[in-house]
Amino acid sequence: MYQSFNPTTRTLMGPGPSDVNPRILSAMGKPTIGHLDPEFIRLMDELKGLLQFAFRTRNELTIPISAPGSAGMETCFVNLVSPGDKVVVCQNGVFGSRMADNVRRLGGEAVIVEQEWGRAVDPEALQKALKANPGAKIVAFVHAETSTGARSDARQLCEIARQSDCLTIVDCVTSLAGCDVDIDGWGADAVYSGTQKCLSCAPGLSPVSFNERAVEVFKNRQTPVSSWFLDLNLVMGYWGEGQTRAYHHTAPVNALYGLHEALLILSEEGLEASWQRHTSNHLALRAGLEALGMSFIVPEPERLTQLNAVTIPEGVDEAAVRKQLLQQFNLEIGAGLGSLAGKVWRIGLMGYASNPKNVMLCVNALEAVLSQYNVHINRGEATAAVLAAYG
Amino acid sequence: MYQSFNPTTRTLMGPGPSDVNPRILSAMGKPTIGHLDPEFIRLMDELKGLLQFAFRTRNELTIPISAPGSAGMETCFVNLVSPGDKVVVCQNGVFGSRMADNVRRLGGEAVIVEQEWGRAVDPEALQKALKANPGAKIVAFVHAETSTGARSDARQLCEIARQSDCLTIVDCVTSLAGCDVDIDGWGADAVYSGTQKCLSCAPGLSPVSFNERAVEVFKNRQTPVSSWFLDLNLVMGYWGEGQTRAYHHTAPVNALYGLHEALLILSEEGLEASWQRHTSNHLALRAGLEALGMSFIVPEPERLTQLNAVTIPEGVDEAAVRKQLLQQFNLEIGAGLGSLAGKVWRIGLMGYASNPKNVMLCVNALEAVLSQYNVHINRGEATAAVLAAYG
Repeated sequence: MYQSFNPTTRTLMGPGPSDVNPRILSAMGKPTIGHLDPEFIRLMDELKGLLQFAFRTRNELTIPISAPGSAGMETCFVNLVSPGDKVVVCQNGVFGSRMADNVRRLGGEAVIVEQEWGRAVDPEALQKALKANPGAKIVAFVHAETSTGARSDARQLCEIARQSDCLTIVDCVTSLAGCDVDIDGWGADAVYSGTQKCLSCAPGLSPVSFNERAVEVFKNRQTPVSSWFLDLNLVMGYWGEGQTRAYHHTAPVNALYGLHEALLILSEEGLEASWQRHTSNHLALRAGLEALGMSFIVPEPERLTQLNAVTIPEGVDEAAVRKQLLQQFNLEIGAGLGSLAGKVWRIGLMGYASNPKNVMLCVNALEAVLSQYNVHINRGEATAAVLAAYG
Repeated sequence: MYQSFNPTTRTLMGPGPSDVNPRILSAMGKPTIGHLDPEFIRLMDELKGLLQFAFRTRNELTIPISAPGSAGMETCFVNLVSPGDKVVVCQNGVFGSRMADNVRRLGGEAVIVEQEWGRAVDPEALQKALKANPGAKIVAFVHAETSTGARSDARQLCEIARQSDCLTIVDCVTSLAGCDVDIDGWGADAVYSGTQKCLSCAPGLSPVSFNERAVEVFKNRQTPVSSWFLDLNLVMGYWGEGQTRAYHHTAPVNALYGLHEALLILSEEGLEASWQRHTSNHLALRAGLEALGMSFIVPEPERLTQLNAVTIPEGVDEAAVRKQLLQQFNLEIGAGLGSLAGKVWRIGLMGYASNPKNVMLCVNALEAVLSQYNVHINRGEATAAVLAAYG
């Protein structure tokens, strides 16, 4: 009745997954070996080293969780939050709200620092909230809000949290490898990311990193971690040091092959070069989109380079445009999420997908499709603007 | 510093992962598309249909959880157990113990029905426990205990639970596609499985199925599900009916390509044919191993065909034998787990790996390695026994 699935080859310029490098696709198709095979244990050790490089940390507990980014988020909260704990959650988009939901489900109290969507978290508002809540244990915030394209000042927010003796939980899902992530430099205590954004790997894994201060918290909990699967006290029996690894769950072997190759590609390019590439392609895309009359919802100094949230020209059916881009050009761009649904497009330039070919395709395809609407476009201007931006 | 990872091609005859069919490896390497792409939504619909076929159920909530089997287990417990609930857990191996651990972490009370390892769950013992605990809400048991190779009578245990008006949670990780799994026939309420056993897919996903009775329980909980990631009330917004799917987490796209191909292969062979194949290869392996002087720890009527736990000949260094099998023949067999560590080998014949070539390799390689020890072996007898078993 059914047949083998052969997906159309798309260009993925939404909020993730991003285009996966063919080297990574090929790695995921290599023969499966056992999760306790000595060769696999060597791979695990290399993965830890490569993740430390990507996160810029010496944290020993730096590993990929065997599930998507949401599970990485949950790993941080379920291990660090005990019932009754007060957690200050900075909320400037969808993903901050999810953090607060996590806190409440675990019996914690979420103190919300509300921020206009499309803006970075306001450090002064965090300071005020911490003054008003002297018993707070943790500060949680999103470095790069995928729902709005805003980048917050992680270094400053971590410092403010530290002054109030709070642990920090930082969402680096969209930032890792796309812009400056500096776990040890920030002094962030627990961070999580995903594989399907600027690492350009398939979705399904969630790199996390915990420093000693965070490890002490879950080692000394009074109540057990409510999740068996994500309890780091158990997970570290498998991911820890030495050749003897205690079986906890069966690792997603082939997905980890893919992550290893993705991190290898990043190490070949270098972190700074990757960030620079994301910046230059962002600037070219921006020139093209602005020539088409679109504008960014995030003020320039707070803007991400890997995720561009732009307004939709008046009179345009935004869903129809996305559908046409997908059907005619195999180009995926993202819709707005939460309160921005229907109001913005989210155009990703993440990892392998952040390249001049994609910038040109996106600008030209948008120009072609939008010209069917009653939108004023000076044909050819956008292309020229892109070229000029690359200089 | 590091290089691309190129695993040695192994023959996987441990407790899982099992050898992955090359068709599945190739499927996992196909280009990633978006988790909201219309093509992907069609794939999700086909996956639900194929899983219903494999589980033999018409349950609408039949989906793969985006994480390994342990997360499937947790999905059942975290959605169905509320604080204070009494759960009767049948414990005849490692995986029963994990169920009990899940219950306790969620604030439930685990009533243990203890059973000798290597034996099926005793229906009378369950009946007694239910009589002694009239307030029990749930009965949980493992259909196929991967730590011992014992198969319990799921139909009978589900019926006993139903007589006491208890929901059932059934672990079908190692049984699915390897022997008779009949969710609707049993009247099981919630079941979970894994991809890396008799489906011969890469590890990393966990198929689950919930009937209406189970769905009503988590829809009407008084306390929120403690896990955001595994809350089926949210997950079903994405996996539910219709073309409009609410984003919950980013699906592990390429892993799901693999599962789709694995289920397709199963549907091409047919369930009964797959079970029969597992039986005939098991009987041949058994003939060979018995000719080598090994014996099964599980009595014949309760024995799994896909997982063979056998005693280690006296005077043999079991870890050294496994190491030699891996290094010289690229053959992986499993060690004992929990209280059986050091006492048994666990030899899997699961899915794609359940074939005469592997049976012959395993028996011959074991004969070769064991003959270095002071073990009495009539050379050639084992091979003859294997051939005779195939008839």
